[in-house]
Amino acid sequence: MGQAKERIIMGIDPGTNIMGFGVIRVTGRTMSFVAMDELDLRRLGDPFLKLKRIFEATTRLIDTYLPDEIALEAPFYGKNVQSMLKLGRAQGVAMSAALARQIPITEYLPKKVKMAITGNGNASKEQVAGMLAQLLRYKDLPKHLDSTDALGIAVCHFFNSSRAGAVSESYSGWEAFVRKNPDRVR
Amino acid sequence: MGQAKERIIMGIDPGTNIMGFGVIRVTGRTMSFVAMDELDLRRLGDPFLKLKRIFEATTRLIDTYLPDEIALEAPFYGKNVQSMLKLGRAQGVAMSAALARQIPITEYLPKKVKMAITGNGNASKEQVAGMLAQLLRYKDLPKHLDSTDALGIAVCHFFNSSRAGAVSESYSGWEAFVRKNPDRVR
Repeated sequence: MGQAKERIIMGIDPGTNIMGFGVIRVTGRTMSFVAMDELDLRRLGDPFLKLKRIFEATTRLIDTYLPDEIALEAPFYGKNVQSMLKLGRAQGVAMSAALARQIPITEYLPKKVKMAITGNGNASKEQVAGMLAQLLRYKDLPKHLDSTDALGIAVCHFFNSSRAGAVSESYSGWEAFVRKNPDRVR
Repeated sequence: MGQAKERIIMGIDPGTNIMGFGVIRVTGRTMSFVAMDELDLRRLGDPFLKLKRIFEATTRLIDTYLPDEIALEAPFYGKNVQSMLKLGRAQGVAMSAALARQIPITEYLPKKVKMAITGNGNASKEQVAGMLAQLLRYKDLPKHLDSTDALGIAVCHFFNSSRAGAVSESYSGWEAFVRKNPDRVR
């Protein structure tokens, strides 16, 4: 009997104020909790220091947990162009750390993550956190809900890749968004 | 008589379709042309491939020209949130290459670059290119105006840093923009 291949999935929620991450280990069809935490970037006033911190933190997390795949929460629609530019920079910097190490990245819309975890695309952060606690039975409760959000992204990626068998698809979010929201994209 | 310190400035214009770069050498108050070119990203369909290419190209350019400072053209206002998210990602990825090597980054608004080169914030790309050709006397004409744009960013940074003596100020664009355009930022 062959042993199921183990893989590590890291979920990242790269924001300009808080960056959350969550790591799970997947063996065949079962998953287990590895780690989750968040980085508070609010006390860093300089926008470049924030980006530098995101880049260094993501690089360090990758070198610590050696993920085989990285899943990113990527909202494609936001309040205004400035906040989207800032968010894009934070995403680009987090992605770079993965790109530099040739780790495939998959993006998920926030709604898709909520749907995958709770069955409801409009679920609250608390509902997502509650369901994850049941699914993964971790002991230490997270300090904030940004950590569980990021963990949810990793679990969403696991569900998505095992359902569709589409681990090789390294980009889904943007195309899917454009298809579904032609009026929002030009 | 001490020799004036030489420094290399690299200007980058990281777009999602074309990425331009220009490099100048500065000795005291004189500058000379080193290189300029551009990268056409349009044939790369996958957005991740584009970002990967920008990251790798910026890293390679840094390792080739060993710039002491990097200047970035950064529009802070765009057509819509999607294009700004894409642009922010491209900027974030280019910045990461500089952040990874601890090279200070300064941002300039497109208007500021045009103003620094031609004295007119609304100058055309052709006017910028014409003035740069006079200032730097390079022999090979660039293929496209994205290269001269990037070269203009490097020259703008030189003018700005020698005028203000503010080489140490590693971030100016965003704060300046927020100050001048409070209504556009939240």
